[in-house]
Amino acid sequence: MSIITLTTDFGASSPYVAIMKGVILSINPSATLVDVTHAVAPQDVHKGAIVLDDVARHFPPNTVHVAVVDPGVGTDRAILGARIEGHYFVAPDNGVLSKLTHRTPPKHLVRLTNPRYWLAEVSNTFHGRDIMAPVAAHLSLGVDLAELGEPYAQQFGIAWHQPTVSRNRVDGMVIDIDSFGNLITNIPLKLLTPYPSDERACIVCHIYETYGIFSTYASRPTGTLVALIGSHGNLELAIVGENAADRLGIETGQPVTVAWNL
Amino acid sequence: MSIITLTTDFGASSPYVAIMKGVILSINPSATLVDVTHAVAPQDVHKGAIVLDDVARHFPPNTVHVAVVDPGVGTDRAILGARIEGHYFVAPDNGVLSKLTHRTPPKHLVRLTNPRYWLAEVSNTFHGRDIMAPVAAHLSLGVDLAELGEPYAQQFGIAWHQPTVSRNRVDGMVIDIDSFGNLITNIPLKLLTPYPSDERACIVCHIYETYGIFSTYASRPTGTLVALIGSHGNLELAIVGENAADRLGIETGQPVTVAWNL
Amino acid sequence: MSIITLTTDFGASSPYVAIMKGVILSINPSATLVDVTHAVAPQDVHKGAIVLDDVARHFPPNTVHVAVVDPGVGTDRAILGARIEGHYFVAPDNGVLSKLTHRTPPKHLVRLTNPRYWLAEVSNTFHGRDIMAPVAAHLSLGVDLAELGEPYAQQFGIAWHQPTVSRNRVDGMVIDIDSFGNLITNIPLKLLTPYPSDERACIVCHIYETYGIFSTYASRPTGTLVALIGSHGNLELAIVGENAADRLGIETGQPVTVAWNL
Repeated sequence: MSIITLTTDFGASSPYVAIMKGVILSINPSATLVDVTHAVAPQDVHKGAIVLDDVARHFPPNTVHVAVVDPGVGTDRAILGARIEGHYFVAPDNGVLSKLTHRTPPKHLVRLTNPRYWLAEVSNTFHGRDIMAPVAAHLSLGVDLAELGEPYAQQFGIAWHQPTVSRNRVDGMVIDIDSFGNLITNIPLKLLTPYPSDERACIVCHIYETYGIFSTYASRPTGTLVALIGSHGNLELAIVGENAADRLGIETGQPVTVAWNL
Repeated sequence: MSIITLTTDFGASSPYVAIMKGVILSINPSATLVDVTHAVAPQDVHKGAIVLDDVARHFPPNTVHVAVVDPGVGTDRAILGARIEGHYFVAPDNGVLSKLTHRTPPKHLVRLTNPRYWLAEVSNTFHGRDIMAPVAAHLSLGVDLAELGEPYAQQFGIAWHQPTVSRNRVDGMVIDIDSFGNLITNIPLKLLTPYPSDERACIVCHIYETYGIFSTYASRPTGTLVALIGSHGNLELAIVGENAADRLGIETGQPVTVAWNL
Repeated sequence: MSIITLTTDFGASSPYVAIMKGVILSINPSATLVDVTHAVAPQDVHKGAIVLDDVARHFPPNTVHVAVVDPGVGTDRAILGARIEGHYFVAPDNGVLSKLTHRTPPKHLVRLTNPRYWLAEVSNTFHGRDIMAPVAAHLSLGVDLAELGEPYAQQFGIAWHQPTVSRNRVDGMVIDIDSFGNLITNIPLKLLTPYPSDERACIVCHIYETYGIFSTYASRPTGTLVALIGSHGNLELAIVGENAADRLGIETGQPVTVAWNL
């Protein structure tokens, strides 16, 4: 049992993904390969970081997660091998691991420097194929992180916006939009539980507002803006049966406020 | 050997699919996972039902097919576990299994009620992850349907339009459009075999007509409307080398008539 | 260990792909299935040939590669089983194998004629399901090519444009555009190495020109046109951080010239 997941910005149908899988299977033919997504927008490290953080913890311990969102390929940016929350990660040092490490400091972090675990020839433009895929395959076969490189401290992070709490008010923002167009905020349930969730809670996003925090999309009529706690455990805004992001013209970064009229 | 297929409306590149796979592999690390499609339009139960019906029978016996097209998530709609034609199915009771069960009544049908086979925490918004994925994994490990819930009768169906046959005439409709834009009707070969397939057969769809039922796309010149029996065994209309749905502006639900001038 | 890859023009989310996988797993339940791409434009044999040639060699020896880009399905065009560079290939005889065979003549090539290794019923419209998938599964189980059909000589090729070299000048063309919009030419590194790669090299494509052949995208500022040797080993034109094909309006077939001012 050795599972390797792939998260890239190669595009949903890119043969580059299959090339990485070929390299992995050449080293570990019994690896189980799982696509997380290849539709991260080109070089959108921020989105890659959110996806990794959402998905990784649902996999079994010791899964190897590879993230190739790598605008700095071919420069001297480091490539990281990390152990975080019982999983392995292989990714460039550009912030793509930073949402995970913001929550849990890595138990072990190395800079990949041992070419013995890379392809014999390394290009300047596709380290996903030449370094990250083979390293992930070797990790899945049990090679130790210490063998793969030198101890290292992550250099690049992302300033993850934290929600602020003041009297009867929480301020956060939309940090992600899912494939249904639901607006996912950075406001976790635990910041909301001290307050009532009934119509005294007013949720404001751009020029739109809705009252009450519901438990399901189906709690409100089709076409209605509804606030609820999504499957990730954060406050989410949706339009029942429709695509809220498209309908409201909201993008990630949009401030969201919950205010209680007590 | 345990195969689990996934059909959802999550969007082709949704990380939610990978989350379900992580949950499944956490329970059955040796499951073979196959994506059927994740491009069912959001909440399009009708399309989900057609896809399941087309695809499932091509898999080996005992394959577990999971269908998450679930607009009622979080309401009291039931989630079904079913055995149909030697396969297992896990899906909401909203009609997504009804094209299959319309042809073959389930040998065994339960409502999933035993939380022992679910994730420890169940959200109100993602039963695909919290109930359907773990149940599918347990089915693939050999857990009995009777163990997963209570006997149940499917409550929701879809009025599957049946073609009608009158003297020298069959009336049906376009029920699906494939990725090439071919128009797939609900008229099976067996309704056509009593009649000649030569130019005496006139096939009419919207304002378009074509004569004769051919055996291959290549039987007619590029750009020509052609009627043939498709790989699913039903009458299909195509434009040779082009996308018929786009070119003719036809959508599912469009009536199709075959009339014989005898 | 038996790996089967799939390259088709079925569209990224087509259930037809899952149907082929169901057929394969019914014959060889332990096959490892890898999607190369299903986004080859409908019937674009040329693109299918380029993808196969790029991807296949990264897989382990004895991998079975199936390519279903098959505008002639149902006609008397042959379906090929081939052994090339230590891999197996199953594809129609329409040129989709010709980029591979242009480089390396097949060690063994048969026309698939033995219906014992096909599905019991063969349609006229989906040989991917009825012939190619089952044959690939049997190949992955060790059935010999000689058992699957008769010796055959490939009938259809594609006139692969070859770059020309004259004094201080190489003329080639854009043969592929990747998912980042990078323009991939048919000019291999080896034609360029006799010359300097500094600013004396002028690369011209349509009305655009750039000086010098760099080693990484990051060698030039964002928004700049840059020429470099891509991961496939050929000259490539990119706009740093952007989609060159969209920005410049370049399509495959566009001539590219490298001229040295010495």
